[in-house]
Amino acid sequence: MIRTNDAADRDLTALVEEFFGTTFATDNPLITEAVRRMLAAGGKRLRPRLTLLAVEANGADPRAHLALAAYMELIHVGTLIHDDVVDGAQTRRGVNATAVDYGNRVSVLAGDYLFAWIFKNVTANYQPPIPHILSATLADITDGEVLQLRARGNLRLGIDGYVEIVDKKTASLFAASAECGAITAGAAPIKSAALREFGRNFGIAFQMLDDLLDLTADENTLGKPVGNDLRERKVTIPLILALESGPAELHREAERFFSRDEGAADPEPARRLAAEIVRAGGTNKTRDAIAAYVERAKSALSALGSVPARAELGALADALARDRALRAR
Amino acid sequence: MIRTNDAADRDLTALVEEFFGTTFATDNPLITEAVRRMLAAGGKRLRPRLTLLAVEANGADPRAHLALAAYMELIHVGTLIHDDVVDGAQTRRGVNATAVDYGNRVSVLAGDYLFAWIFKNVTANYQPPIPHILSATLADITDGEVLQLRARGNLRLGIDGYVEIVDKKTASLFAASAECGAITAGAAPIKSAALREFGRNFGIAFQMLDDLLDLTADENTLGKPVGNDLRERKVTIPLILALESGPAELHREAERFFSRDEGAADPEPARRLAAEIVRAGGTNKTRDAIAAYVERAKSALSALGSVPARAELGALADALARDRALRAR
Repeated sequence: MIRTNDAADRDLTALVEEFFGTTFATDNPLITEAVRRMLAAGGKRLRPRLTLLAVEANGADPRAHLALAAYMELIHVGTLIHDDVVDGAQTRRGVNATAVDYGNRVSVLAGDYLFAWIFKNVTANYQPPIPHILSATLADITDGEVLQLRARGNLRLGIDGYVEIVDKKTASLFAASAECGAITAGAAPIKSAALREFGRNFGIAFQMLDDLLDLTADENTLGKPVGNDLRERKVTIPLILALESGPAELHREAERFFSRDEGAADPEPARRLAAEIVRAGGTNKTRDAIAAYVERAKSALSALGSVPARAELGALADALARDRALRAR
Repeated sequence: MIRTNDAADRDLTALVEEFFGTTFATDNPLITEAVRRMLAAGGKRLRPRLTLLAVEANGADPRAHLALAAYMELIHVGTLIHDDVVDGAQTRRGVNATAVDYGNRVSVLAGDYLFAWIFKNVTANYQPPIPHILSATLADITDGEVLQLRARGNLRLGIDGYVEIVDKKTASLFAASAECGAITAGAAPIKSAALREFGRNFGIAFQMLDDLLDLTADENTLGKPVGNDLRERKVTIPLILALESGPAELHREAERFFSRDEGAADPEPARRLAAEIVRAGGTNKTRDAIAAYVERAKSALSALGSVPARAELGALADALARDRALRAR
């Protein structure tokens, strides 16, 4: 059974890839090329996979909804293109950031065009409330990013403040991806709400895992140096959980670290702070928090009954928690 | 009669201002503040005025459609916020550019949020095809800006290439502003198409006037140095029209000018090229071209019959051509 599910999920991913490689094109060749380049650089296509599995879970054919699934990934790609301008990033997924190859000017415009192109197509081809859900989601994502910028270096952020930001910045798009798949498949409201709830909890666990890997993965796996989030003055969940019960010395060390000049070249202080966070239990507590959100995500799926897509969605969520086993020190 | 129209138009502008000052607010206070600051710095509110006059021309009450009119100005403001990041502009309408006061990071996100917020509200409150027209318009604007970037310094652009870019970059939003006002007022298709056509020609004339003022207005009126567009390597309509029939020497001078390093500090070469363009007839021909587009705009209005708003729209178009009288050398 698990083999069958894995095979089915591989098929969905292949369908999404095929769509990007053949069907996807905007009216502006330069922007199509910039987007294709970013798509080719990698990504797990989790958002479109949630959409297609939500379609399948409600008895419709995923092949009929590839465009909608693709828009979910493209909203994500648009935010990445703009993030790279915002962060002055040099690389993204191991290749040059769009802003490096095309310049900031084209990058800002390419992101704007991509968002507008998505909404133009969604308003032409999808019934309410899907256009509204997608635009409200993009508002949430950018609102969350502004909140995150303002929370940089704020050691008093706390778990609630963190979850509020992550809910908007990251989880909203996973929630919309699953919900819109259900709606377009004609799901009953209780099922589309359940899939939204799944996506939201999945997204929070996903962001927590991303924060965790910043401290525990090695540079080759990650494509960026350990403690990179800390160097960008992001208050990540392992830090928050370590501060909660950690020694006063950790608080002082974090305060010293965040009061330094941003972007200091020396990676050593970030590595030292990362080690302190691990020692104070921040990463182990993060693993527990991820497991809790994965469980909440899977519980939400009970509204679906016992369709095969439910098991596949559950397996995707479990994979977030499995990183725990793989990377436990 | 003209006095009455002027007074009515002043009332519409005041309504729009009041809306921005009191009703307008997004869910993100930082972004609301950044947008209000840019709105307070000036602007003639031409786009919302077209919307409200189009509403009035079709027998509905402009007071009932202030939000829709405001979205037209806000789309414009969003593009300005991003342009200032793209151009590295220091000032906008005489005050600091958003990017200067808030940083590039917040500016990119503020523009994204504003676009998403507009679409979120439009999809919640307006019937098809209005959400589609607005998103297609934003796609046109950004597509046009990318085309303009690629056409920098291209002396072979020609009038057709210029109009194609301006149609997308500038005229599309004026066209949508007038058309959406008509649609939301329940206009017959022939009238909303006529108002779209009015807005399109109005927008082309508007951009041509903007290009003209870059060469003929003094720095105090303009808030930027004479020939600033040329220094940004924009191929403007006075240059195109001057090249069409001007001396070969002008072509060589323009080629030399555009092959220099961009952003050279010395304003003298741009001033010299500007004087050459005037001498070769580029500004006079531009005045004729503006007058022709203004006439086309006014002709489109015949579908409206003899409602008072038609005279006001005509007066707004005439004002674009009047700059000819005011600024003729």
